[in-house]
This record gives sequence, structure tokens and C-alpha cells, in this order.
Amino acid sequence: MTDKKPLILVCNDDGITAPGVRNLIRVMNEIGEVVVVAPDGPQSGTGHAITINGILRCDPITIEEGPQKEYSCSGTPVDCVKLAVNVVLDRKPDIVVSGINHGSNSSINVIYSGTMSAAVEGSLEGIPSIGFSLCDFSWSADFKPALKYIKEITLRVLEKGLPYGICLNVNIPKYNGSDYKGIRICRQAKANWEEEMDSRKDPRERSYYWLTGRFVNYDEGEDTDEWALSNYYISVVPVNSDITAHHWVREMNSWDL
Amino acid sequence: MTDKKPLILVCNDDGITAPGVRNLIRVMNEIGEVVVVAPDGPQSGTGHAITINGILRCDPITIEEGPQKEYSCSGTPVDCVKLAVNVVLDRKPDIVVSGINHGSNSSINVIYSGTMSAAVEGSLEGIPSIGFSLCDFSWSADFKPALKYIKEITLRVLEKGLPYGICLNVNIPKYNGSDYKGIRICRQAKANWEEEMDSRKDPRERSYYWLTGRFVNYDEGEDTDEWALSNYYISVVPVNSDITAHHWVREMNSWDL
Repeated sequence: MTDKKPLILVCNDDGITAPGVRNLIRVMNEIGEVVVVAPDGPQSGTGHAITINGILRCDPITIEEGPQKEYSCSGTPVDCVKLAVNVVLDRKPDIVVSGINHGSNSSINVIYSGTMSAAVEGSLEGIPSIGFSLCDFSWSADFKPALKYIKEITLRVLEKGLPYGICLNVNIPKYNGSDYKGIRICRQAKANWEEEMDSRKDPRERSYYWLTGRFVNYDEGEDTDEWALSNYYISVVPVNSDITAHHWVREMNSWDL
Repeated sequence: MTDKKPLILVCNDDGITAPGVRNLIRVMNEIGEVVVVAPDGPQSGTGHAITINGILRCDPITIEEGPQKEYSCSGTPVDCVKLAVNVVLDRKPDIVVSGINHGSNSSINVIYSGTMSAAVEGSLEGIPSIGFSLCDFSWSADFKPALKYIKEITLRVLEKGLPYGICLNVNIPKYNGSDYKGIRICRQAKANWEEEMDSRKDPRERSYYWLTGRFVNYDEGEDTDEWALSNYYISVVPVNSDITAHHWVREMNSWDL
């Protein structure tokens, strides 16, 4: 880092008006020059989706007074990062921060998460990138106790950098009234959703479904994000955009295909 | 495998009427009992998106005569797999096959791909899963020379199985008139899209954008999917749903956060 203020790109998946991103913007204003390029509405669960069969809008907007510049986009979180880098910004940002998500993106949730996909996309643009999530779905969640940790992690990444294609998945336990215990570097726990499809009939007697489910952790390891979160630590998982199962390449070579 | 015919779930992201999935259904009918649960329209580039803020439809349909059962769904490819497992099928399928995608899902394309996300989702349900893609965007692409390889790979996976959370990303070069050279087990090449946003004005003089770009391979390794494809081999990359950058966990522990 030079003495020049870092350029910080802020994104999220809950939409540009969500309390989570408003809190993130406030912290980032203390660190650098902030440009927000975020979806115009909820984009939770959009994963790494991009808009290829339709058009994108990206227009300046003022949601709150402040030094930040803000742009509201019609697309997914990944679209937002692509629009920011290719249309909005005149230089490459020093960091991409995404969130603060309303709800956990720990464990397998990372692959469904629009918030994390914005961070992954940032890492593919060669920009150090972090996704932040608070394990509290409430719109009135208390983000404040998390902010000093978010600031610390962001400053450390600005100082140290991250390798191409690797970003950070930071999850923060729901605040219980006492100080967080600290930060743990973790691996993604082996866990999954046991889905149920809530089956209903519409007024014309046609079937439709709502996706619901129950999160199940199969992993008892103390080096996982789930362990850290359930023990009131903030979890940090480095995430790789190379998703090759390298050990299985060797195994499959013995299949003689 | 027992003598019982395997139950095969077929999905894709180009929509249930696409020539790619129709070809895949024909091959799978030679192997087992086929149930198709696929999107009612194009879902390319939807990545691992799921539908959580809206309803899902999933209705029986007959696109072509044949022994297969078919269901057309309103959601993403991942929604299709969840609907198949939780609503449509009365037992767990023996394999999920997704595709044949119109266009490459090699290298970094894997994370944007709805076709591959259906396979990843299958692997998270504990089902051996494969995504197939032909590197030819044309609707009239020649799928036929690829079919014997698709059959071979599918039979081998039915025989050998795959570990929980690992699926296969199979890409097939565009047919050039001569026999494919064979199959290579590969890693995902380090490559990315250099995007350009095509900026336009609508009839009301408001700006809008189309996402376009150029694929750039930075990786000269001969063990990559890009190398295999450009040398007229079919590439098979095992893909991991655990996307932790494990080597970076160790590195970050020295950051003393």
C-alpha cells in the first residue's frame, strides 16, 4: 500500500439498500475511497450466475449521504463486479468487499451465495477479495460488534494481498451480547442441506413448490468454519476458484478410460 | 451395480428441448431407466443459483416419444436436481448426467455453468454425477461422434462410483470429421474471460449493457483440460465441492489475525 487511499469496491447480494451493505460501506469509508456497485434488489442464492441472455442496467444512485459513490445494477452480484471493473471504475480497485450478508455463508452455503460469488469474481479479476456474512437473517441484526473485525481483516488483506483466484469467506456469529472470542482460519465444513419441497396448489389447482430445508453438519473437525462459529469465533476460509479435485485426477488415471 | 437397470436422472441448462439433452437422453435410454428433469427454457450461465424468493413449477411433459419420463421445471438446473430428488423420484438415482451442453464448460467456465452446477448438486446429494459439454455452440452441432465416449464414461462411473462431493466435468472438442483421439484426465486450466461491456442506448436514451468477452488461457500445462481439447482429446476434470484453498489455510495462520 502506498500513502494513497485504497480504492474499495463494495458489492453484496441482498441489494443496495440492505442494512448489511450500509454497515460495510460505513467501515470502508474509514479505510479508503469507496465505490458501491450492488444489485437493485435481492439476489440471494444466485451463486455465480451471470446475465448472458438479457441486458444489464447500471446507474448512479444516492442511497445515503457520504463520500462513497454508488451504482445500482439490474444484474447478479457477479454482473456487478464485471460492470464495476469494466464500466464504472477508471482503475482496478485495490480490494473487493462483499456483504455484509444477512445470514451464514459458511460451509457448503459458499457455492450458493451471491455474496461469495462476487468475491470469487473479484479474485478472478486479480483483485484481493473478501465476502463477509453475519449468521443472523434479521433485517435488524446487530452488525456493530462485527465491524472492528471486518476492518482488521480488510486492512490485513490490503497489506498482505491474496494470490490470484483465492478470496476469503468470512462468517461472523450472531451477536449474543458478549465480545467475540477472536478470528479462526478454517476449512469449509462437510455439511449440506436436507431439502424439503413444500408442495402447494395454486388457485387454479396447479401444483407448485417452495424450496425449504434443514442445514446438517456432518463434520466434527475443530478446524472447520462450523466449529469456529458454534464456538463464537469469526471464521475465515480461503476459497479457491480452481475447483479441480486434484487427488482424484491421480485416482482416475488408474481407470484406464 | 446389480442386474437391475440403473436409474438415471438427466438434466441440462439449455432447456429441455435443446438438441444436446435430446442426444443425451437417447444414449442413456441404452443404459438404464431414464427420468429427465430439466429447465423449461434456457438457463445458461446461472451457475449454482437456486430459487429461494419465488415458487417452482415441475410438471410432466412429453417432448419426444421414448421410454424416458420427462418433467419440465421453471427453475435453475440446481433447482431441477433438488426437485427430482425430493419430489419426482421415489428412489435415489444411481447417477446424474447433465448436458450435453451447447458450448465449452472447460477451465473457469465450470463455475458459471448451470450444466456443471447440476452435476455438483448431484454430488452433494451423494449421487455420482457427470456434466457433459460439446465445444460447439451451434444448435445443429454434431453430437453423434461424442456419444460412444459419453456412454463409456457413464458406464465406468456407474461401475466405479465417485466419492461424496466430487463430480466429473467432461468436455468434448467440436467434431472436425475425424475420430476423437481419446480421453484425458485433466486439471482445470488457469484461464479467464477478458470481458467487454457492450454499452448501448435504449430508445429513451438510457444506457444499458451487454456482457461480452474473450476467453484467455494463461496455462501452458499439458495436464489441463484446455490442452486436451486443443489436441482433440475429450477432457475429464474431477470437480470438488469443497472449495477451501487448503494450502492457504496454513499460510494465513502466520498472519496472526
